[in-house]
Amino acid sequence: MSDLGNLAAFLDEGWRHLQQGVADSQSPARYPTFATVSPEGLPEARTVALRHAAQAEAVVEVHTDILTPKVKALKASPRAAIHVWIPRSQVQIRLTTTAEILTGKAAEDAWVQVPPTSRVSYGTMPDPGTPIKEVFGYKKPPVRDRFAVLHCRVDHIDLVHLGERHRRAEYVRSDGWRGTWLAP
Amino acid sequence: MSDLGNLAAFLDEGWRHLQQGVADSQSPARYPTFATVSPEGLPEARTVALRHAAQAEAVVEVHTDILTPKVKALKASPRAAIHVWIPRSQVQIRLTTTAEILTGKAAEDAWVQVPPTSRVSYGTMPDPGTPIKEVFGYKKPPVRDRFAVLHCRVDHIDLVHLGERHRRAEYVRSDGWRGTWLAP
Repeated sequence: MSDLGNLAAFLDEGWRHLQQGVADSQSPARYPTFATVSPEGLPEARTVALRHAAQAEAVVEVHTDILTPKVKALKASPRAAIHVWIPRSQVQIRLTTTAEILTGKAAEDAWVQVPPTSRVSYGTMPDPGTPIKEVFGYKKPPVRDRFAVLHCRVDHIDLVHLGERHRRAEYVRSDGWRGTWLAP
Repeated sequence: MSDLGNLAAFLDEGWRHLQQGVADSQSPARYPTFATVSPEGLPEARTVALRHAAQAEAVVEVHTDILTPKVKALKASPRAAIHVWIPRSQVQIRLTTTAEILTGKAAEDAWVQVPPTSRVSYGTMPDPGTPIKEVFGYKKPPVRDRFAVLHCRVDHIDLVHLGERHRRAEYVRSDGWRGTWLAP
């Protein structure tokens, strides 16, 4: 058993889960919940696929079609809460982030790495969320100009581990991620 | 294979997943993400345990300590987005709800059914989220007056099934949950 009272080790553990999510599509951290506030001020949450997680810069990335409501929400308010629950480890990871929407040339490096079979996720016609008459009354052509990277700068991390005794800590960018234990 | 183009059957399938979450602590629907908007207008998301799901009234319930930030958020704005991703079935369930905070007598029936060993989830000292000096520098006495039921009236349901061809539908309370297919 590692040192349960070590704040830095706990933070490393959180990032390790995120990096495993990027590397392994079977990992629960592959599919975080991405929560935003709609232009009307309402909470919204949906599954996303985690595409990048870098502890050094404290950045995570997901990909999206620019015509989805989450992009509309982020244009109104760029803050996104990213939430992961790892059942086997009983670990909850909560990131508070500020998202930048990268398109065009800024998204080129990411686009070329998207497998051709996955590119159809960007370009659904009619637009995602449009009512249609038949269950399969839509097409999914790949549309390069609909692809965006959501580059999420992490501002705050809240980690919880439900063990024999629970551990909870928060970490903030502004003090260099030193961390503080919290009552769970 | 059931009728993929049947809106009512798709809705039933969504509720079946939720009810399984209530019945089985191993089910992924047991631990939805509960998203709210903070009093400052920021998105917040955390894991909750699903305690009740009734299709007839379109209501779900979770339990909470009244001193948590989600209760503060709901007092400022009672809307909550509840999100479930079922990996094995590749089904996403998104509920838009209006939450009522039940305490005291209104929460009595639920409290008596909480096992004594679980009652310590309501009453952490110092208050949840308070900085503490040591990792285990807190106590967890059961405090009856800190227990609340979040009674969430479902207003809108968005279901997605990622199959060979994706299916997506939305359902609203205001038309009796008839449902409409959406472009995914």
